[in-house]
Amino acid sequence: MKHLISMRDIGKDEIISILKESEKMEKLLNKKKPLKILEGKILATVFFEPSTRTRLSFETAMKRLGGDVITMTDVKTASTAKGESLIDTIRVLSGYSDIIVLRHPNEGAARLASEYSSVPIINAGDGSNQHPTQTLLDLYTINREIGKIDNIKIAFVGDLKYSRTVHSLVYALTLFDGVKLYFISPKDLEMPKDITEDLKAKGIEFYKSNCIQDLKNLDVNVLYVTRIQKERFPDPNEYERVKGSYRITKDLVEDKNFIIMHPLPRVDEIDYTVDMLEQAKYFKQSFYGIPVRMAILKKLLEEE
Amino acid sequence: MKHLISMRDIGKDEIISILKESEKMEKLLNKKKPLKILEGKILATVFFEPSTRTRLSFETAMKRLGGDVITMTDVKTASTAKGESLIDTIRVLSGYSDIIVLRHPNEGAARLASEYSSVPIINAGDGSNQHPTQTLLDLYTINREIGKIDNIKIAFVGDLKYSRTVHSLVYALTLFDGVKLYFISPKDLEMPKDITEDLKAKGIEFYKSNCIQDLKNLDVNVLYVTRIQKERFPDPNEYERVKGSYRITKDLVEDKNFIIMHPLPRVDEIDYTVDMLEQAKYFKQSFYGIPVRMAILKKLLEEE
Amino acid sequence: MKHLISMRDIGKDEIISILKESEKMEKLLNKKKPLKILEGKILATVFFEPSTRTRLSFETAMKRLGGDVITMTDVKTASTAKGESLIDTIRVLSGYSDIIVLRHPNEGAARLASEYSSVPIINAGDGSNQHPTQTLLDLYTINREIGKIDNIKIAFVGDLKYSRTVHSLVYALTLFDGVKLYFISPKDLEMPKDITEDLKAKGIEFYKSNCIQDLKNLDVNVLYVTRIQKERFPDPNEYERVKGSYRITKDLVEDKNFIIMHPLPRVDEIDYTVDMLEQAKYFKQSFYGIPVRMAILKKLLEEE
Repeated sequence: MKHLISMRDIGKDEIISILKESEKMEKLLNKKKPLKILEGKILATVFFEPSTRTRLSFETAMKRLGGDVITMTDVKTASTAKGESLIDTIRVLSGYSDIIVLRHPNEGAARLASEYSSVPIINAGDGSNQHPTQTLLDLYTINREIGKIDNIKIAFVGDLKYSRTVHSLVYALTLFDGVKLYFISPKDLEMPKDITEDLKAKGIEFYKSNCIQDLKNLDVNVLYVTRIQKERFPDPNEYERVKGSYRITKDLVEDKNFIIMHPLPRVDEIDYTVDMLEQAKYFKQSFYGIPVRMAILKKLLEEE
Repeated sequence: MKHLISMRDIGKDEIISILKESEKMEKLLNKKKPLKILEGKILATVFFEPSTRTRLSFETAMKRLGGDVITMTDVKTASTAKGESLIDTIRVLSGYSDIIVLRHPNEGAARLASEYSSVPIINAGDGSNQHPTQTLLDLYTINREIGKIDNIKIAFVGDLKYSRTVHSLVYALTLFDGVKLYFISPKDLEMPKDITEDLKAKGIEFYKSNCIQDLKNLDVNVLYVTRIQKERFPDPNEYERVKGSYRITKDLVEDKNFIIMHPLPRVDEIDYTVDMLEQAKYFKQSFYGIPVRMAILKKLLEEE
Repeated sequence: MKHLISMRDIGKDEIISILKESEKMEKLLNKKKPLKILEGKILATVFFEPSTRTRLSFETAMKRLGGDVITMTDVKTASTAKGESLIDTIRVLSGYSDIIVLRHPNEGAARLASEYSSVPIINAGDGSNQHPTQTLLDLYTINREIGKIDNIKIAFVGDLKYSRTVHSLVYALTLFDGVKLYFISPKDLEMPKDITEDLKAKGIEFYKSNCIQDLKNLDVNVLYVTRIQKERFPDPNEYERVKGSYRITKDLVEDKNFIIMHPLPRVDEIDYTVDMLEQAKYFKQSFYGIPVRMAILKKLLEEE
């Protein structure tokens, strides 16, 4: 593993190895002692579109390991605004730093960057395509909170048509054994056909529903909620109607056994009263991003 | 002390303890040796409105102690722009960092944040309400330059109606013994009545004047100057007239014994010729922000 | 050397001493071990206009040496937006940091700052005037790649009228012996007369041409290319014509012996096919900025 560009590049063994390393990192974090594992190393975070949370998660992971960070977020005022190409930016920054985290609006940008970089590239989102560290932290959360990924039963709720996060996690779950998937979404935001066809071809069990109330009768380990974005609806009234009905409330979930996950930020789709429940794991999930990203930074810098 | 939200939460003993710790920090700084007191710790600076000076002062304090910093200033492009609540932002960031410095335009924001944060919160300004580290560095400056706070005589000049800095310092001074206060301001920018009533109730000696020339006959230890803001005046001509007359010049102050303080930035209210005088302490006051903030960061992280 | 404001302030001996120190720094970098040479020191980067590449190069250099950085780039939202003067900003920041890197649109800003700063100032560009670390890294690149600066033959191509980089490097080269200069530019973007007069007065050999094809017959060690800026042309058609003809292609240079330098960012003036050639040194040149800036930071902080 020289770069981390796409979940499609890594197999089940590699995922499990990353999750194990992440667990070690979490234990180190809990000791609250300064670490010097990446002392003297520099991470460059290069964000061609803003994603403060992702950026800060990587920067925290690097600093927790004793490394340091340089940040290029003001891309509109930077050399690229003078017409510099992504390739040139990456070539220059790979002369400054030991590893680069790249966020870019265009699909394939991270792959292209990795072909010209002399240091490892981590893809922190390339348009609607890939954001592999999000998927890895989702898998870590499931494993950490449920104790397994094989044979997991997981319901996805919300916008299943456009959510990069959901598509990528569903793909990763198909690498594990005996997984059962439940897709609950408005009619217009159902899981894309190419993904469900792929699931069928692989013999993965899955169920579809357009009724959020079906949650009540569902026996799953995980409820994974995603945001429904206003931009997806031509008719604002339709958006308001759907949004209102796809809202997770305390009533709907408090007598269930599943944990609740969400990639955050959350807007209205999970009611604040849900936060008090033991099942609400989305803030822990966000925290787990730190040990997972520590593990990835360490792995890529050591294998270099 | 788990958080630092308001001067109203801390008593005279705690103030004196912070000032003593600050003095130790200043001595450590003067040795110019690397410190490792907060090695491995991470401060998150979260600025919902810009205040570069305050942010850099905290970041410097943290780095001088050997700690590190993550910065969220691009709030308009961050998750909050997608509708995320302050509470969610704080919950996520308290999973990343060991302590948070928060600046927010709304009164009460820091208090609210402290109720949801798993790490200490320092209020770096919540609207017109509180900015306690500014008050503590003002007190430190007085003590450091005059040698005492009890029995101090201090004149405030400028906008006394709207200045958060002045209101907070006046309140803190009332915790000390034998303080005498002089308020010199334009008629329309006098000290608010609730504050003067409070002073009367506490039996604190104070004097009011609308004439800057009264400075000439004043026997005080400290002259504290604040900016008169254009926005406060409906009539721009009135602003120009007042601004012109409330300007501290060399002539006005050079044969006096008081030191001159100002929270900075300064615009026109202190003439540049005053900078050369021994009495001008505003740049030292700004520097004193570093040891004071070091003391507070250390205290909050150690008591955790 | 207390500050680094202009190449005009330093002589040949001092340049050679910086280049030697830079070579040591490059060797240290190549060992890939954490350095503690500037541990506990803080650099403030203060950018009144954006230059992400220059800022990150300095920040990397400081962090490679084990030091830390505070950054003030959001100048429009900072105190200066409230009317604070450059002098006040510098006075405050020199109370926070151990050394300041300043970029400012106005000529002379760095010199002015140095008169009020209690810590060393490095000029990272003051309008069209000086950017001495760029010149030093250019000299370092020539020495590192050719093995000498004395008796060097160098051709400059592109906008020679407005390029601060070219003017400053030409001046620095005149301090060395036996230098031969070739100036190839469009008629309207020729080297300014005051510079060529100065060269004549000093007895430096130089040649002028308006024909890029003359490159073919040139026996030089270095080809230094600069960008032709659209803003310089009142007529956009004229710009397109000139730009097209002043483009370095593989055909034009592949059978020559010179190395190719460029201060970057590059837009169209060097074709991407040139990047594959051994001669293309512009990304190395950008990397060399790190050891050169490390040497300068170390020198200024040690001599303090």
